[in-house]
Amino acid sequence: MSTVEQICIKAKAASFEMGKLSADTKNTALLNMANTLEANTEKILAANNLDVQVAKNKGLKASLLDRLLLDQKKIKTMANELREVAALPDPVGTVLSTWTQPNGLIISQIRVPLGVVGVIYESRPNVTSDAAGITIKSGNAVILRGGTDALNSNVAIGEILREALNNTAVPKDAIQIINSPNRSAAEELMGMRRYIDVLIPRGGAELINTVVEKSQIPVIETGTGNCHIYVEEDAELEKATPIIINAKVQRPGVCNATEKLLIHRNIAQSYLPTIIAELQKNGVQVRGDEETCRIVPEIKPATEQDWYTEYLDLIIAIKVVNNLNEAINHINKYSTRHSDSILTQDFTKSTRFLKEIDSAAVYWNTSTRFTDGNQFGLGAEIGVSTQKLHARGPMGLQHLTTTKYLIVGDGQIRK
Amino acid sequence: MSTVEQICIKAKAASFEMGKLSADTKNTALLNMANTLEANTEKILAANNLDVQVAKNKGLKASLLDRLLLDQKKIKTMANELREVAALPDPVGTVLSTWTQPNGLIISQIRVPLGVVGVIYESRPNVTSDAAGITIKSGNAVILRGGTDALNSNVAIGEILREALNNTAVPKDAIQIINSPNRSAAEELMGMRRYIDVLIPRGGAELINTVVEKSQIPVIETGTGNCHIYVEEDAELEKATPIIINAKVQRPGVCNATEKLLIHRNIAQSYLPTIIAELQKNGVQVRGDEETCRIVPEIKPATEQDWYTEYLDLIIAIKVVNNLNEAINHINKYSTRHSDSILTQDFTKSTRFLKEIDSAAVYWNTSTRFTDGNQFGLGAEIGVSTQKLHARGPMGLQHLTTTKYLIVGDGQIRK
Repeated sequence: MSTVEQICIKAKAASFEMGKLSADTKNTALLNMANTLEANTEKILAANNLDVQVAKNKGLKASLLDRLLLDQKKIKTMANELREVAALPDPVGTVLSTWTQPNGLIISQIRVPLGVVGVIYESRPNVTSDAAGITIKSGNAVILRGGTDALNSNVAIGEILREALNNTAVPKDAIQIINSPNRSAAEELMGMRRYIDVLIPRGGAELINTVVEKSQIPVIETGTGNCHIYVEEDAELEKATPIIINAKVQRPGVCNATEKLLIHRNIAQSYLPTIIAELQKNGVQVRGDEETCRIVPEIKPATEQDWYTEYLDLIIAIKVVNNLNEAINHINKYSTRHSDSILTQDFTKSTRFLKEIDSAAVYWNTSTRFTDGNQFGLGAEIGVSTQKLHARGPMGLQHLTTTKYLIVGDGQIRK
Repeated sequence: MSTVEQICIKAKAASFEMGKLSADTKNTALLNMANTLEANTEKILAANNLDVQVAKNKGLKASLLDRLLLDQKKIKTMANELREVAALPDPVGTVLSTWTQPNGLIISQIRVPLGVVGVIYESRPNVTSDAAGITIKSGNAVILRGGTDALNSNVAIGEILREALNNTAVPKDAIQIINSPNRSAAEELMGMRRYIDVLIPRGGAELINTVVEKSQIPVIETGTGNCHIYVEEDAELEKATPIIINAKVQRPGVCNATEKLLIHRNIAQSYLPTIIAELQKNGVQVRGDEETCRIVPEIKPATEQDWYTEYLDLIIAIKVVNNLNEAINHINKYSTRHSDSILTQDFTKSTRFLKEIDSAAVYWNTSTRFTDGNQFGLGAEIGVSTQKLHARGPMGLQHLTTTKYLIVGDGQIRK
């Protein structure tokens, strides 16, 4: 039997134990995990330093190095996030509904853990503790497969978290780390349908596509955001400009940052020079469709590929559209169904936009940057789902659960 | 562009129209579909007769021929099921919750259609109209790929249903039939992730496995049921016997029929001869573990494979267990997580069973045969989900929807 399969079997066995635990028991373990992480800061930093040295020698680019690099403050944040998850209400055991059928059967639908959750992620080692925290709290066992670049960091964090479970009622085997750097281990994991109930890829579009294509386990797609803002001809432009700048500039590397701007033809001539100047002042590279380039000739033309692209960078592409209809069709064609916003004073137009845009979060007169568990008031999230099955939008604790029906009778048989 | 892709594009375009329709509009279309089906009974029977002749010549086995064969009564039932779906409440547009964030953003989560639903099924032509009805009502477009043996029947029913949409506001293209008998068409369909939001296989374990393994589209697994009844030492045996007989015999070919019986060791000697005689009297072939065969020597020994098998037939395998623990472990190892029942008078034991059995429906003192949308009072179902993501147990109209967040602001930006 392969190492990956052995890990899966242990996680599955642990998941049955996890399902029986009270919220108190899980919270005690989460606080222990937080304290043990902090107490082992030096050990984690030493392991992380090994990864960073290898990455530097390999010439990993600066933005990736930045994600990989841990420091005392980041470890403190990881610990505090575990404490925050401990403070959230436990979704497990919630009775969603109970009713009695005419034949006397009493039927209840209750929330239960999913079982075993697999998480495949890239080079951010903090995902190791974040994902472990949220899955433990929701009563699951977790199998973590992080990026090769962060292998030493992930293994160190994983061992420390498992150690922290030693004196708790949460089984150590509820946290499993795949410590093989080989791609074949990840691929084998994606076939372990007998043991794993859901697989969540966290990372760029390429990682997500690979997992969706190869996995036999149900996958939840998260976090690819080609987000749009559409400015109608009647928008209040003094509010539009700060919204657009916020959505593009405040944190360009995240999935809810706006990547595309659509402008109604009737205000293009007057508004485009203003907003483009403002974007450029904020360091944004602007690309435009033919009409945009005609009005502001110095900007770079956008290609067809641009309309599909999530830049995750200080770049935006702008298109002039004839009407609301064209805006809706463009967004439904090119967007990744994450977050899209309309700026308008018109109720009928906003209603159409909110109804017809096929995205997880649809906004009226505000920034796309709000699609986030904490900003929605939902608490810690494991990602933003851009698929329609199971969970859509920010995924919190309850999305790591399923339900089951309990049926109590007294000898009823089916007629 | 392939025919399959053309069909997907049409369905996708229709799905955007579907999302805008009122319940009244969809109900009118469903009633039209019902009436047009009945009015075309002769045409459907003629097409079905072609399929039946080919199937007979091929030597298709009697149980499959029976599923394939339509008659006037079955067509009437198909029409009436469309009428029943029309009478159900429309899940689309339901506001699940609305709240205001401290910054004034008003956030609502509302129910919306999934979009395009693909259904891959076997030789029962009634699935064509049942699946079309339930997907149309929930605001989706549907792509239907039935079994090759029923091709003429499915194409005829599909054309008639599309015709019925002619004078309604539901676009004809919301119902699409894949009329190619080639396996490659089904395989191509499973790759159409850009257009199809969920794929539901309906049929035997082999079909479901193939779809799960090959599909890049999210799949909902339905309907494989290796269901168990466990008789504790303190069970009321005068109630146990009718429950077991009902669960095994009332309709052995369906997924919620019981396939396995576990008996506590302390009552095995006294109860096994009674229940086995009763099962045999009802035409059931009994297989047993070593202990069962020792107590009732004339029965056939069960193999390891038996414990995994969904017979869908008048066969049952019986095992003697030492205690509740062994029963729970056996079920969680071998069951398909569909429906399992405990018969006991003991509250503590039943509570453990209800909590620890990892199945969609867990029963106490009643028959597994109740796992069914209508028996639960939930209305028409498209299948019984045995997976944990999105829907678990009987899947009704609401399980063919997803949600989206609508966020209304007045110029808020993220800080």
